[in-house]
Amino acid sequence: MDTDSVPIAQPVSRLIEELHKLPGIGPKSAQRLAYYLLRIPEEQARALAEAILAVKEKVILCSICHNFTEADPCSICRDQGRDRSRICVVEKPLDLLAVERTRKYNGLYHVLHGVLSPMDGVGPEDLKIKGLLERLKDGPVKEVIVATNPNLEGEATAMYLGRLIAPLGVRVTRLARGLPFGSDLEYADELTMARALEGRHEI
Amino acid sequence: MDTDSVPIAQPVSRLIEELHKLPGIGPKSAQRLAYYLLRIPEEQARALAEAILAVKEKVILCSICHNFTEADPCSICRDQGRDRSRICVVEKPLDLLAVERTRKYNGLYHVLHGVLSPMDGVGPEDLKIKGLLERLKDGPVKEVIVATNPNLEGEATAMYLGRLIAPLGVRVTRLARGLPFGSDLEYADELTMARALEGRHEI
Repeated sequence: MDTDSVPIAQPVSRLIEELHKLPGIGPKSAQRLAYYLLRIPEEQARALAEAILAVKEKVILCSICHNFTEADPCSICRDQGRDRSRICVVEKPLDLLAVERTRKYNGLYHVLHGVLSPMDGVGPEDLKIKGLLERLKDGPVKEVIVATNPNLEGEATAMYLGRLIAPLGVRVTRLARGLPFGSDLEYADELTMARALEGRHEI
Repeated sequence: MDTDSVPIAQPVSRLIEELHKLPGIGPKSAQRLAYYLLRIPEEQARALAEAILAVKEKVILCSICHNFTEADPCSICRDQGRDRSRICVVEKPLDLLAVERTRKYNGLYHVLHGVLSPMDGVGPEDLKIKGLLERLKDGPVKEVIVATNPNLEGEATAMYLGRLIAPLGVRVTRLARGLPFGSDLEYADELTMARALEGRHEI
């Protein structure tokens, strides 16, 4: 930020700094957002601040699937109408939403909160893998759909999970490569995602 | 937002909604930001929320130049080292920062908080014009630099101010057209802005 030398009210420069920390918000965008927040009515700005505080206070991880939730277990894990013989494993909560939006999947989920990435020092113990294996023991689960991203880390994580889970007698499948390699699951459109679900195959 | 049908914790969807209201933040960006805020440590999210609340609580408009400030009058209006014979009129506080960054201007400022725009129903009475005229009465001001944006509304506002101010015996100038027509002052680089200041001309 080159605002140090410029007469700018301290709370404003602090807000610009905090906004600049957000992903995808550069210094100019941070300035614009800060001045936007200064301009709007106080109750509108307060609504945003309170929404930020509320997610930190009220939202927890489901102790079963590790998705974000207000109540534990989450609404999906509690839903008796769900097909309990399938678990779809995703990297992050936004990927779960992408699968849900297809309305073609009625099973359960498991959120890893990351993928294996030796370069970034992320190993199996950093992911929610232990809990996944426990869910498969003596349970009704017949299939695990590994829906990690179709890129290097995602594939490696899928291979790793496949080797761990196959000996348990559970079918392990992977989303079909309807998804273009190197892309991000989060941005897939509903049709592509639905086709990828239908065409899933054994690892 | 197509999150209605999807099992998403209520505080999360509320946060996505609030983020989506910000300028330049689409539904996908809002989702990403919300999940980013969920992931980071609570004190980091709290710092952002508090920075938002702080600007609304502590930042006011300077009663002289109408720039954002913590103390009234603001540091520029109080600064006795400033050239009190010149006032630079800008549309919004971010434009003031763009002029300050050149370090080529040592006069005072006046923030209009908008420009004349009949299409949007913005007339002279909606801008801080009355206060500007009062500052020119019997004062030491010899020149008003009208630094509104070089687009239709900005030019119209400059012409309007020129007609009001010229009879008071004060020189009214306009930034040189070093700035490309149709652009936004806020994004001008320091050199272009400095040249525009040097080449200012009578309206």
